[in-house]
Amino acid sequence: MKPIIALAMGDPAGISPELTAKLLAVDEVAAKARLVVIGDRRVLDDGAKVAAVKLDLMNVLPGANIAGDGPPVFIDLGHLDPASVARSVATAEGGRFALTNYRHALTMARNGRADAVCFTPFNKSAMRLAHPSYDDEIGFSAEIVGLDGPASEFNVLDRLWNARVTSHIALSEVASHITTGRVLRGIRLTDSSMRGAGFDRPRIAVAGLNPHAGDGGNFGREEIDAIGPAVEQGRLEGIAVEGPFPSDTVFLRAKSGTFDAVLTMYHDQGQIAMKLMGFDRGVTLLGGFPFPICTPAHGTAYEIAGKGIAGIGAARAAVLLAAEMARKQARV
Amino acid sequence: MKPIIALAMGDPAGISPELTAKLLAVDEVAAKARLVVIGDRRVLDDGAKVAAVKLDLMNVLPGANIAGDGPPVFIDLGHLDPASVARSVATAEGGRFALTNYRHALTMARNGRADAVCFTPFNKSAMRLAHPSYDDEIGFSAEIVGLDGPASEFNVLDRLWNARVTSHIALSEVASHITTGRVLRGIRLTDSSMRGAGFDRPRIAVAGLNPHAGDGGNFGREEIDAIGPAVEQGRLEGIAVEGPFPSDTVFLRAKSGTFDAVLTMYHDQGQIAMKLMGFDRGVTLLGGFPFPICTPAHGTAYEIAGKGIAGIGAARAAVLLAAEMARKQARV
Repeated sequence: MKPIIALAMGDPAGISPELTAKLLAVDEVAAKARLVVIGDRRVLDDGAKVAAVKLDLMNVLPGANIAGDGPPVFIDLGHLDPASVARSVATAEGGRFALTNYRHALTMARNGRADAVCFTPFNKSAMRLAHPSYDDEIGFSAEIVGLDGPASEFNVLDRLWNARVTSHIALSEVASHITTGRVLRGIRLTDSSMRGAGFDRPRIAVAGLNPHAGDGGNFGREEIDAIGPAVEQGRLEGIAVEGPFPSDTVFLRAKSGTFDAVLTMYHDQGQIAMKLMGFDRGVTLLGGFPFPICTPAHGTAYEIAGKGIAGIGAARAAVLLAAEMARKQARV
Repeated sequence: MKPIIALAMGDPAGISPELTAKLLAVDEVAAKARLVVIGDRRVLDDGAKVAAVKLDLMNVLPGANIAGDGPPVFIDLGHLDPASVARSVATAEGGRFALTNYRHALTMARNGRADAVCFTPFNKSAMRLAHPSYDDEIGFSAEIVGLDGPASEFNVLDRLWNARVTSHIALSEVASHITTGRVLRGIRLTDSSMRGAGFDRPRIAVAGLNPHAGDGGNFGREEIDAIGPAVEQGRLEGIAVEGPFPSDTVFLRAKSGTFDAVLTMYHDQGQIAMKLMGFDRGVTLLGGFPFPICTPAHGTAYEIAGKGIAGIGAARAAVLLAAEMARKQARV
């Protein structure tokens, strides 16, 4: 039996339709997971045309019983005529389409009818047009799943994980958010999420906030006052965590195999490194949920949508990571 | 005639002695520059022993007339007995040694007796022990050279340059330093320094400060209020500058050859990328001076000092860049 992955089609104006179609044609994906794609069949068929792949995909009804073997299937919600969607434009219709698919996928997993959730890229502006209170995937997912514990976004590249203490906030606000409590929460969540993903005892490096990790307090004291104590506490709790390390070399160490994860203090500290190391293979994973939620780290790529040239490296990596995690979590 | 490069020996407790000795044994360096090494011969001979290279190097007196052809020479200031220096420890003696050598090299270039200056790594703590008001290489060099214009540090990797608007300050203070004036100064200095180094019209990318370059003002307004207007002004002045770009992808574009330089807003924004792209080849260049000043981007590497395993890739790149710049500046 293979894990069942509910794959929500993302923003229809970008590369999501063609990516979804291409994914369905990848043998390795079919071998490792049973995909249940959620969207509108007309949008998918358009994507298949763009991608120049022939789909051999049965439609099933929402709520149909799906086993872990067998070929991929499609749940056609019939809610979007592709003729009504302009390519490469963020619209409320596009946002609603993606959100509806995603809600359906999350609900399936919440109800035990899927082992993991994946989605092709969303467009944040479209999501906000469709759902003005939409903040990010984590908040929306937590609401649908009814999550009451902490959740966090991870970036995963091959075997290396990256989590961050702050994310989509102005750089001017970052330092005031770096507290021992927040860093410790990040350490614990990284540890527990990675154990959930099959790491026995993940080795976590924590980045400093300031240049040269503050140079002993010369350029900022957060390493001394907040980050160091959090690392200390994490170690007392038995977590294999070290740091804080200067952020301009910590990824070199991690890349060489010394660490399984890097916890960074702000968005670009990790993103600069992870995108340089493998823009075309990076996966975004939502941690803290009772099942894996994975998506390619790249966006909707409006500039190349409809051209059939979108690479599926990251989307394939997202599905394969979700499948591997579902398997290791013994959900299958 | 080759450019004459005054090479100051750096911190004696780190890898500087062995690096200097190894550099002297590199054919490409000897072919492209005439090195005038400044230090204590006993320290250099110790380095040669560690590096297992045989030096064939004539000592000359300070003030001797040195032409652009001929083999490398050594100016022995006779000011440090290596027996008095503990390896891998930052001391005032070590700092004094490096500072004296560096001052000598700068003075030679200022007086037209060298075309460029290079130095092997300094230890900042040792420098401060020796010279409590020592802030960084730029301030010290400006004082010795009598520079009255703006100066800036660049990191150079192969053909890609990186400059930054802020450097060794706490991250909490970065945002308040990002003004149109400061960004514009960085753009102009990058342009003029690169023209000085032989670029006809360097293509400069400017990074944003905030995640997703502020996402249209959602996560900070510095891109709209300060960085964008500086880029606009730079273009009006005829500089080939674009941006602001999200900092997590700007280096991918630069790496692909779209830009010759990236101007970043803070230390780690550039350093994370540059070190990941080539830790072993990165050069630090002081721009704004009337002659090139280059050093390897790495530090004193106390943890491997004396083992003979220090790689000379970055030191070699520093000397070759200084030689190339001196040549292009038609100083030779």
